[in-house]
Amino acid sequence: MSKAPMDYRSAGVDLDRAHRDKEGLKELVASTRDENTLSEMGLFGGLYRVPGDVEDPVLVSSADGVGTKLKVAIRAGIHDTVGQCLVNHCVNDILVQGARPLFFLDYLATGQVPEGIVPEIVRGVALACRENGCALLGGETAQMPDFYSEGEYDLAGFIVGIVSASRIIDGSRVQDGDALVALPSSGLHTNGYTLARKVFLGRARLSPDDPMPGLEDETVGEALLRVHRSYLPLLRDELDRDAPGTSSDEGGGRSELRALAHITGGGIEGNLPRSLPPGLGADIETSSWKIPPLFQVLAHLGGIDDDEMFRVFNMGVGMIAVVAPEHADGLVDRLRAAGEPAWILGRVTDEHDGVRRI
Amino acid sequence: MSKAPMDYRSAGVDLDRAHRDKEGLKELVASTRDENTLSEMGLFGGLYRVPGDVEDPVLVSSADGVGTKLKVAIRAGIHDTVGQCLVNHCVNDILVQGARPLFFLDYLATGQVPEGIVPEIVRGVALACRENGCALLGGETAQMPDFYSEGEYDLAGFIVGIVSASRIIDGSRVQDGDALVALPSSGLHTNGYTLARKVFLGRARLSPDDPMPGLEDETVGEALLRVHRSYLPLLRDELDRDAPGTSSDEGGGRSELRALAHITGGGIEGNLPRSLPPGLGADIETSSWKIPPLFQVLAHLGGIDDDEMFRVFNMGVGMIAVVAPEHADGLVDRLRAAGEPAWILGRVTDEHDGVRRI
Repeated sequence: MSKAPMDYRSAGVDLDRAHRDKEGLKELVASTRDENTLSEMGLFGGLYRVPGDVEDPVLVSSADGVGTKLKVAIRAGIHDTVGQCLVNHCVNDILVQGARPLFFLDYLATGQVPEGIVPEIVRGVALACRENGCALLGGETAQMPDFYSEGEYDLAGFIVGIVSASRIIDGSRVQDGDALVALPSSGLHTNGYTLARKVFLGRARLSPDDPMPGLEDETVGEALLRVHRSYLPLLRDELDRDAPGTSSDEGGGRSELRALAHITGGGIEGNLPRSLPPGLGADIETSSWKIPPLFQVLAHLGGIDDDEMFRVFNMGVGMIAVVAPEHADGLVDRLRAAGEPAWILGRVTDEHDGVRRI
Repeated sequence: MSKAPMDYRSAGVDLDRAHRDKEGLKELVASTRDENTLSEMGLFGGLYRVPGDVEDPVLVSSADGVGTKLKVAIRAGIHDTVGQCLVNHCVNDILVQGARPLFFLDYLATGQVPEGIVPEIVRGVALACRENGCALLGGETAQMPDFYSEGEYDLAGFIVGIVSASRIIDGSRVQDGDALVALPSSGLHTNGYTLARKVFLGRARLSPDDPMPGLEDETVGEALLRVHRSYLPLLRDELDRDAPGTSSDEGGGRSELRALAHITGGGIEGNLPRSLPPGLGADIETSSWKIPPLFQVLAHLGGIDDDEMFRVFNMGVGMIAVVAPEHADGLVDRLRAAGEPAWILGRVTDEHDGVRRI
């Protein structure tokens, strides 16, 4: 039994390094400040003034992680996109209730990682915060060398947004016959990576630098690390616009959007029902879109059947908006005019309460 | 190369199990609801109405993890205290800015863990949320079997609280000569465990069930897993009370508390300066309290010198309040009357800007 004095650094935690990492983040964090951000980095808690222009304000909050998409990032040595995926995921999760983001905090736990990796990860977080008009209000970076393998880390995030109580989107106005409008995903977003990795990097023995089979000009790493999209820029105006026959001036303004579903873990069938009232389900027309090549290749290489693919992956659908049938074409037209290839995916039905592919 | 069809469950993620875990949490989460909680569990984002009784409301938010205290919990097989540590830690982090908690979200990432562990962990989170008057508004539970070893998990949390802008505690009123009032910690709280584990479970070859050397009636596991205290119950009234000469009726009410410092990673010297204005430091009288036996045993077994002990551990001080010297005795008296063995730890000085032990 050695009698040498013990200290924190030799136990695996380097407080000086933590301090340097923190200094390197200050400018990144500062770049996301807005007029309601009252605190500088380094306080115990971040301060954010409740915006005064929201009547009967309701906070909408969500926590999420990046999942094992991180494993792909770590293996590919690309660390500045996973933060974007995380922020955009969280932004979408509160967007579906009608909220716009106020601020974000991250939790980053690392094993021994090379100096510079932590700021690279946070750069992605800060970039997406700026893009979504969201202050990066704080965060925690924990050195946990006994928990995480060398070079590995976990990243989670937490968002707070705001919506006026009268404009909360909660699905209560959804009716039988409503239209489902789909917005495309960019790829796998942040779900199903435990299976996708085992297919591409395991069974198919591909490495991140190999060309992705069936895709042009994209490596396996690039295809799998495509950034999870934020739907806020596309849908912000739709949230603010009053549906015909409702008016904000009389305090009764409602968006045409009756429900939104962010297609994350569990796919369309795991997520769309969360946004529908009890007793209503959805019929999805699989002929209404072409499953993107990445999902086809994944199914083929893994021998994964259709049911399992739809149960695990978004299959090219990142967000679903529910509107009255008479508003569907208008919404699709506006989205297409904005460059978004939206389409009518199917319709709400009272014949069952799940998701049926037809 | 096997051609068997692949699926998510055999890849290591069991969606049915995730669903059962979620069902088991519903009651726990519901037990933390308050009149401002507008959402049920299962929505994409949790909804929380901004309380109407706070003038010029400012949100205060913080993210934190439990660190490698989790390793002790996992090895001891005790999973319902780490959630309490996490919530109390976060509550303290926003308390130091004068905020009371509104809601909390957790992030739980697991390797393969036995069924029942996830609800046990969240039970601790929910219990502490109830104790602190804080709604458990949501959370994310991620199965990441390739990231975390079998039986292991990481747990992080995010808190949002509220304070009236005029009652933010930001240290700006702190002056040379102010008194430092200390509130005792319960143990290591949630910091320094990477070193403490290496001392007790490594070098000293103790196991969690062994009696803790130097302590009576406590095992190593029990001593190391003592719950991180929340100082909210003790300090809530102090935050609300107006200091003499200030009055809330005229919108100018201020607490006697000029600054608060939560003693977490980095110990007294790493945290107290975060709460003091530039140019001011603190003199700590080490004779003012007896370092608790747990820290003495730790230093002895690890051969850790005093400087390192103070740099890494809280040394028995969990929270420090800064008040005008004429208010110090009154604060100590009120805290002692409430059963809290508070004491005057030292004073603020303009002679240096760090922490000096005298």
